[in-house]
Order: sequence, then structure tokens, then C-alpha cells
Amino acid sequence: MTNHPPGEHLLDAPHHDGSEQYVGEATPALGDAVPIRLRVPGQGRERAVWVRAVVDGEPRRIEARLDRADDAGRWYVAELPIHNPVTAYRWLLDEPGGYRWVNGTGAHAREVIDAADFRLTTYAPPPGWTAEAVVYQIFPDRFARSPQADERPLPDWAEPTAWDTPPDGRSAATPHQFYGGDLGGIEANLDHIERLGANTLYLTPFFPGRSNHRYDASTFNAVDPLLGGDAALASLTAAAHRRRMRVIGDITTHHTGSAHEWFRAASADPNCPERGFYHWLDQPNRIDREPYATWLGVETLPKLNWDAPKLWERMIDGPDSVIGRWMREPYLLDGWRVDVANMTGRYGRDDHAREVARRLRATVLAANPQGLTVSEHFHDAADDVMGDGWMSNMNYSAFTRPLWTWVVEPDCPLDFLGIPAPIPRRGAPSMVASMREFTARYPWKVATRLWNMLGSHDTPRIRTVTGSAPLAEVATAALLTMPGTPALFMGDEGGFTGDVGEAGRRTMPWEQIGQGGGSGWQGDVFDSWRSLIAARQGSRALREGGLRWAFIQDDAIGFLRETAKERVLVVLARAPWAGMRLPLTGAPELLAGGTLCGTPTLHMTGQALTISGDGPAIGIWRLG
Amino acid sequence: MTNHPPGEHLLDAPHHDGSEQYVGEATPALGDAVPIRLRVPGQGRERAVWVRAVVDGEPRRIEARLDRADDAGRWYVAELPIHNPVTAYRWLLDEPGGYRWVNGTGAHAREVIDAADFRLTTYAPPPGWTAEAVVYQIFPDRFARSPQADERPLPDWAEPTAWDTPPDGRSAATPHQFYGGDLGGIEANLDHIERLGANTLYLTPFFPGRSNHRYDASTFNAVDPLLGGDAALASLTAAAHRRRMRVIGDITTHHTGSAHEWFRAASADPNCPERGFYHWLDQPNRIDREPYATWLGVETLPKLNWDAPKLWERMIDGPDSVIGRWMREPYLLDGWRVDVANMTGRYGRDDHAREVARRLRATVLAANPQGLTVSEHFHDAADDVMGDGWMSNMNYSAFTRPLWTWVVEPDCPLDFLGIPAPIPRRGAPSMVASMREFTARYPWKVATRLWNMLGSHDTPRIRTVTGSAPLAEVATAALLTMPGTPALFMGDEGGFTGDVGEAGRRTMPWEQIGQGGGSGWQGDVFDSWRSLIAARQGSRALREGGLRWAFIQDDAIGFLRETAKERVLVVLARAPWAGMRLPLTGAPELLAGGTLCGTPTLHMTGQALTISGDGPAIGIWRLG
Repeated sequence: MTNHPPGEHLLDAPHHDGSEQYVGEATPALGDAVPIRLRVPGQGRERAVWVRAVVDGEPRRIEARLDRADDAGRWYVAELPIHNPVTAYRWLLDEPGGYRWVNGTGAHAREVIDAADFRLTTYAPPPGWTAEAVVYQIFPDRFARSPQADERPLPDWAEPTAWDTPPDGRSAATPHQFYGGDLGGIEANLDHIERLGANTLYLTPFFPGRSNHRYDASTFNAVDPLLGGDAALASLTAAAHRRRMRVIGDITTHHTGSAHEWFRAASADPNCPERGFYHWLDQPNRIDREPYATWLGVETLPKLNWDAPKLWERMIDGPDSVIGRWMREPYLLDGWRVDVANMTGRYGRDDHAREVARRLRATVLAANPQGLTVSEHFHDAADDVMGDGWMSNMNYSAFTRPLWTWVVEPDCPLDFLGIPAPIPRRGAPSMVASMREFTARYPWKVATRLWNMLGSHDTPRIRTVTGSAPLAEVATAALLTMPGTPALFMGDEGGFTGDVGEAGRRTMPWEQIGQGGGSGWQGDVFDSWRSLIAARQGSRALREGGLRWAFIQDDAIGFLRETAKERVLVVLARAPWAGMRLPLTGAPELLAGGTLCGTPTLHMTGQALTISGDGPAIGIWRLG
Repeated sequence: MTNHPPGEHLLDAPHHDGSEQYVGEATPALGDAVPIRLRVPGQGRERAVWVRAVVDGEPRRIEARLDRADDAGRWYVAELPIHNPVTAYRWLLDEPGGYRWVNGTGAHAREVIDAADFRLTTYAPPPGWTAEAVVYQIFPDRFARSPQADERPLPDWAEPTAWDTPPDGRSAATPHQFYGGDLGGIEANLDHIERLGANTLYLTPFFPGRSNHRYDASTFNAVDPLLGGDAALASLTAAAHRRRMRVIGDITTHHTGSAHEWFRAASADPNCPERGFYHWLDQPNRIDREPYATWLGVETLPKLNWDAPKLWERMIDGPDSVIGRWMREPYLLDGWRVDVANMTGRYGRDDHAREVARRLRATVLAANPQGLTVSEHFHDAADDVMGDGWMSNMNYSAFTRPLWTWVVEPDCPLDFLGIPAPIPRRGAPSMVASMREFTARYPWKVATRLWNMLGSHDTPRIRTVTGSAPLAEVATAALLTMPGTPALFMGDEGGFTGDVGEAGRRTMPWEQIGQGGGSGWQGDVFDSWRSLIAARQGSRALREGGLRWAFIQDDAIGFLRETAKERVLVVLARAPWAGMRLPLTGAPELLAGGTLCGTPTLHMTGQALTISGDGPAIGIWRLG
């Protein structure tokens, strides 16, 4: 990416992204030609503008013509030929002294690899409702208990734990502490979620297992009776749908529990049909001491072997498969989040991962044309997500990780999501460079629907990472204003803490919530979340607009989210900074400012807008 | 890549590459663990060193231990598990204030995508002889005529042209100017190539066609009688092999000529077996006005359709296929350069390109375990070349293009290899960043065998690009000292000029060559090439050593090529520069300096080495 001195604004950079001002059709058909546009602000130095598009493996050059010139700059348009399912392209800005390439990471005065090219695909985008989705992740054992919860007999593995006891994040008992939250408890508390402004429930697994997290399923054919059983799921989805909420389930395509009926059959009888569902080893390997492959050496999580055709049939192909049946009446799930998708079907020479994604998607869409699939892939997921595989991904790599490096408190001792080193505290140029590099590889229609998160049941809580409520609010504002589907883990909206994922899986303190706050629930944090979610839901630009960087300083960033009709300026500061003058006009309307942190002040002076250097602070303005 | 102030040296950067000092085994087997090493020079700040290796789609962390410390720094070693055919990995250097990642593009204080990870694969490397290969590309019509050439009847398309007439680069006659060079002419002049120091002949196509370039084959079953026919090929390869030279053919897997026997049959009879070998169109598309798909709209070059199983059989599968039969007795080709490999089998939804590469390689290796395949892919080829497909590639993207931007004369009006803008003149930081970004994606064993070129029959001549003989010599020194197989186009060694590929396809002036020079042949350029090739052939470090950047300034670069036993310092300057002081010791032995440009002077002063700022200049020293 081009480096800019920290004091300068970036609004003179040539710009393209996949939003409506720049791309005429996000999902063209083969044979189409799509008008695409480049905006070139500032003084005109360009001699010509071209598109380099890869067709059948070979770049073609297409000359762009000047379409119009306005205060925002000169707009060039070219017709992009759609000859392959994925079309990679970038812009060439021919200027005296040497051309520049413009790709997903910015403008470059050097030769660039194709990895950061823009991409337009013929593959269907995630369903339309995801444009307005705000995801609320629920760990069922910890959300709420229904009255029926008291009546259920406990299994041998469960260690009953009082609702107000904080979970033990790091002991042998951690997976067995049983609080008894259930689906009825969720249904009874949908008001809370609706009041927050979230509209999509993502439930971690509801299949029975031998742990409170249930990622060790013992069957995929029943909802855990401890959660209320099949009927409770049907009732919950019906109640959610009445509120126009969606419900996403959680499936482990990578492994089952060792108590799973398939694994028990396979272990007992080498000739049974399920034997081929697992990887049986002649000798222990570097990861697995057991005679079968596992998830990272955990013997209770045997890895599924997608070489077995019958596994496809049982698990993902067709309406009677596991994937299909829970999307049908009366359960009507709206989609699946897929656990450990990045490892699914990958083992040694085998790589079935994309085929699993493709066929799982087909089953989901056959059951519900508005269905959604979301992979869990903590890393560089673009190759698995850009095509007809996973529709979305839990976006740790392009959002959570870079953001954490900016909002983390100094000298935070927490390990960094599997990286064996503390979370580094870095300036915004580092954060933004990483976000752009990871995001560039996704088609825009996918990038804007990735599930952005401040954390999840697998991570420390954002409140603990930042060490302060004001900084956590800055992070929350990033979540609600950057491209992507905001997804929060239950309790973040009340300021929950936790230094590892398991410690953050705290129960919801309903009594305090009802009273607007208490020692374990911060009502002002909830108010902040509500206000920021409402700002997003009130602005199409914040949900679907393009993204132009206005400035990137160590301690503050500013960016524009723009549609054809709306322009929103977002300023986020983690600390006091120098302030900035931007060549922007238009009457600013504050959509949201800081509840827990400050709000910068904005002054219009002639043809410029001056932003004060308050921090920590957030400001979201519509520019009229 | 980390930016460094131009005056500073870079030898304190942590370093890893795939060479013998850093990787214990370049081609491990599944199940192996390979020791890999990171060198950390300078003052020790690191708290710990880790490897992040992707296994079955999931990163694993492996702690490295300090193996030894010496003057060159601290060497850490870790055992890399080989569980998949391709293992991507990078290093984590845990330092106070935040870790850095070390990948193929350098050290980064931010999150990085996987694209630039180092890669170790279980796939066989290019054959061993390629480590010492210097490729000499011959365009047969222009190299030399045998006495028999006068006796052959000319076909209707040929316009006989006198040997000393410069080719017309830009007219309707361009493909038809016929000079009558033949394979016997090549055989008669092998002394020239041997004297130069090249040892691998690459012949552009020898199949008959209706043009002097013969990329429009009318059959793959005979050597063009105009070149001497089948017997001339057998004789040439035998003569070359007696000199321990190799001979590489050129095949068009992407298309045939419209005069090809397959295409004529397919056009005449829709029911013939060859009908399916081509893409027949219901209506003209954006590229093709003909009723069949072509190479970039050229109607005489119909595109092959790899959906047809019989095409695989005829063309690439087994010893009797086109690929197989010319590698058998009595022809014994040593391999194939594959034309337009990047487009081969890619059309709309189809993508057979990697399968073509894989099966073609298998046929080549079955015919000769030392056989070679080299793709023509002008662009970002790593995904097609890193596995069991093409063994090597014509390395325009990671070498030729970036190098040209550094050595091009100011205000050069030439278009830049298909880019619709003049070749930009840029500083070395831009060149090196691009080289590193493109090269990082290849396994080291592949990167070091890519065919680096200063140009080819498809490009302007380097002498014309640089505008001067001294600058062309700087480029030549880069070719002979950087990782990769040097490949030159006949005549570059005598200072040929040409502003487009066709104009550069000049005939060899044998009379002048015999006299050591003349108006069309520069003897001192030949001496320079000879000296630089000899320097490379005399130094294993220049051929196979690792690459560490010592300094990168706008007008000069310095780098070390290192094996366990040898260390060579290379300095290349395109213009006078400030000079540099490096913390290196050891008695310098000059392996080669400038013949046409200058040679910097080197002074040892205590624990440092000072390089003078001469330019244009080249210097290659072994440090004792």
C-alpha cells in the first residue's frame, strides 16, 4: 500500500470498490459486460485509465472513458467482460512519470501480484436479509433457563453450577460446569435481543454431547433434551420468525464427539457402514496418539473422513441429511455456522473442504432460498469463501485480529488467539494495512457480509482486551460502521469480561438486566450498543456503502461510507490525537457519538471540515 | 515489506529462505519432519522464535530453539511437520513491543495474509541439471542456414528475405518474411553457444505452420521439412547431447494453426473425432468473431478444447502422444516449453490447466526422468507452478518486468509488455518489492529454477529497453547473479536491438561474429556475457545459494548469495550513487566486474567493507 505521511488526508487517492457507485452489477451472468467505475479525485494528472481483467487466464486491457467530472473527482467507466465465474481485475492509471495500479489494497507505483485484484463473480451472494443482519451469538447453557430446566435429570458428565457462579476458564471441570440454560430460556428472552437491535440468533450447538459446549455431538438427529429437545427448537424458531428474526445453527462437519452413535458403531464393528466415516491410523502420527485422527489431538473429537460417500449422504446431501432436515418444518433453521470449516475434509493428501462447502450450500439453498452458510475459518479464508462454497465466514482475520492490535490496552498479557505471544499494540496504519490486505481478496458482496466480531465464545472478551469501557466502545463503533455483518457474543452488550473464551462464557444476570444494571451488568454499555446498532440500522451507507479512507494516524482513523445518495463520515480515536482537516463539505448530522468515550467536534470552515483530536472518542456523521 | 531508510544496510534483518543453510530437505516425504532455520543477526531482542505452519488447513505453532550463535547472528531451528503435499509456514519473532512475522517478503510488524508464506512441498523439483543450466533461446528461421536450405522448395506463404535484411517488425509481411534458418544451421554453430557458456537450447516451434514463427502448427507429427525434417532434429539433439547440452522443444497446448490437420478435419466433418478438439460457438462472443474460440481473436489460431478425452490421448498422455514421441528415440528432446500455458484449457467455466500441466509432466518424466517442462505464463504463475504441474515458468513477472522498471532508460517510449503505458522508470525499492512479492509465492526449489530473462522473441531487446550497452550489462549481471535459471534470446549476447519482439528476431551475422564484431555484432558485449556466465558457473553460491539483501537504494542494490561454504557479494548500480558501508569481513575476490560499465571499488576497513558509488557499475566478489 502507498504510505502517506500521518498528517495528510487520503481523500485524493484514486478509488474503486464493489459498492453501487463503482460496480453496475454485483452478480453478473456469464456473457455479461458490467460497467465499473474508478473515481480519481484531485488535480488531473492521468493521461488514460485502463482496466486489466484476467479472462481465461490471460489479462486483457480495456480502456476506460471519462464518464463525468464533479466535485468528487473524475469518474472513469469501463465495461468489464464476464467470461469466467470469477473475474479478477485492477485499474491502471497512466500518469506522467509512471503508471500506478489500483487494486484492493490501494494504489501502487510498482508491479503487483494478482492476489489483491478486485473480484467480480457470477456466484450468488449471501441472501439479501444479511444486509441488515446484526448477529447475536448465544451459548445456550449460559443464556437463560426456562422453568422446565429444573425438572430435567442431569447426565453423568454434568457438574451442576449455580447461575451466578463465574465459570472456571481453565480447569478440568471447565467443559462440565453445567448451568442449565436452554432453548426455552432463549425464547423467553427474545425481548432483550430485540431491544438491543439484533435480529439474527446464532446458537452454538444444540445437539447433545458430553460437555456444556456441545461441540462433541453424540448425535445429529436430536436436539439435546437438556435444552428442551426437538420441540423447543421448533418453538424457538417460530417465536423468532414471528419477530422477523433468523436463527442459525452450528454444525461440526470436521468431527463428531467420541460418544457419537457413528463413532461408537465404527469402533465396535470394523465392518459397519460408519467405519469409513473416520480416519483410522496404523500408527500414531505427530498429532494423534489415538488410533484415529482427531481435532488437534483431542481424543474425544474424532475427525470425519470425507472420502466416505455415505458420510456425504448422511451429513450434507439432500433434504434428509443432517443439514437438510433441521431446515425443514417444523425446525426451519435459517442456516448453519460450520465449525472448523478450514480443516473439514483436509487431511494429508485429501482436500474435500471446498466440495463440502459447495454441496452443503446447495442443500441449504434447496431447503430455503434465503438460507445462509457461515464458515469458522480463523485465518486467510478468501480462497474458500469467494466462490460457490461458504457464503460468509467468521471474520477474525480481516477484522478481529487487526482491530485488537489497535484497541488493546498497553502491555496486555493475553495471548493473541493462538499466537504464542501477547497481543501487540500497534498504530492504525498497521491495523488498516492488514484489514485491507485480508479484505481485498474477497468479492465486495462477500466482504460486506463477513461476520465481523469483537470476540466470541472462543476468545477473551473485548472489555478485557481493551482494559476499559471507553476503548471497548471505540471497538464497538468499528464493528457497527465497517463493512461486514456485525456479530456480538451475548454479554458483550453488558460489558462482560473474560481472559480466555471459557472464562467469558458467563451467564446472563437477568435480574440486573431488568434493573438496568448492577455489578455484573453495565447498563450504559447496553445503551451504547443500542445507540450504535440503531445508527447502523438507520443508515444504508453504513450497511452497504463503499469505504474510502479519509485519514489513518496512529491513534485515530477516519473513513467515509458512501452510497449514491448518502455519505457518512466515521471517526474513531483510541487516544487524544492531533485532529484533522478534510476537504469535505455538507452539513454534518451526528448519527451517534460516544456514550462511554468522547465525541469529537466538527467544524465546517469554508470548503473544509475540521475534526477535533479528542480521544478515546467516536463520531458518526451523515454529511448532508 | 518493512521500509528502510535508503542509506541503511539491511543485513540486520531476520532471514530465512529455502536454501541449504535454512532448510534441511527441499523435497520431504509425507510424515517427515524437516529442520528449518531462522537467522537473527544483530543485537538479541527476541524473547522466543516460533514457526506457524499450516497443517490440514489449520496453523500449528512450533517453538524453535536456539541452535547456535556466531558472527552471523543467532540461528534458531524448528522441526517442520510434513503432513500435506504443500506446507505453508512463516516465522514469528517474539520481541518486546510486539512480535514480527517473517515470510517470503521480509519482516512485518502487522498481520499478514498467507500468500507470502514460505512453502515446502513433497513434489519433485525440476531435474538436477537445471541447477547449472544457462538457456539459449533460438528462433530457428533466424539463427543459421545449412547448405541444404537453398535446395528446399518454399511454401506459398513464405516471402524469401535476404539474411542481412533487418526484419520488419510491424507489417502484414512480418510473419511471412522467410530467412530460411534451419536445424542443420543450429547444429553447425553449436560452437558459438558453447563458447558463450550456455548449455541448454530452447527452440521455438519446429513443427510446420504457415508462418516463420510456427506457433500455428499444421501438424505435431513431423518436423517442418523447411527446417530439415525429422532427421535434422534427431541429428541436432544427438550433436547437442555429445556436448552435454540439452534441447527443449516448444509446444502449443492452447491452440493449433487453422491449417492443422485436426482443425481441417473438424471443420470439414462435424462428426469426425477431432470435432470436439475445438470450441465451436453458437454465436460470436466478445473475443471471437469466428464460429470457434481462438487465441485472443486471431482466427488462424483456433483454441483447443480440453473437454475432449481424445485430445488428451493424442496430445499429452503416454509415450505415443505428441509430448511423448518427440522425447523418445531418435529425437530425445529433453523437455518442452509450453506456449500460452496460462490459457491452456481455460475457457469460460472450464479450467483444465493444472490437469494438463500434471499429465504432461507425467508423460515427460516417463520418457525421461531428467525431463523438464516450462510454462509460458507472463503473469502471477505461482499457483500453476508450485505443485506437480509445470516445473518451471518463463519468469517475466518476478524478474523481467521488475528489472526493466529499474534499468529502462528515462522516457523510454516502449509499451510495457502488453501494458498500455510506457515502461516506468522506478527506483530499486519498487523493483525489489515486486520481485520479492512475486517470488515469495514459489517454493525455493522452484523459484531458483524459473527461467529468468532479459527478454525473448516476444519482447523488445534489452539493449533497446536500456538504451545503452553499460546499462544492458547491469541487467545482464542481474540475470546471472539472481536466483533462477538464466535464459537469453539469441543475439542478446551480441547487443541486438529491437523495439518489439518481431523486430528483435534478427538473423545472426555469422561473418561478423567470426571476426569478433562488426556493425551488427558487438564483440565486447559477447565478452561481457561470457565473463558473467563464467562467473556464475564458477560459483555454486551464485547458482544455488540463498539470497540476502544487503542494501536497496534507488540507483544501486547489493545482495549476498550464500551456501554453507561460500559467500558472494553482488553490487549492481544503474547510476552513480552514494556508496555503502557494510558490516562484512573476509578477503574479497573479484569474480566479475564491468566490461562495458564500471566496477565499484571495495575497501576493507576493520570490521566493515566500503563500496564505492560508481555507476553504472557491477561487481561480483567472493568473500573469503
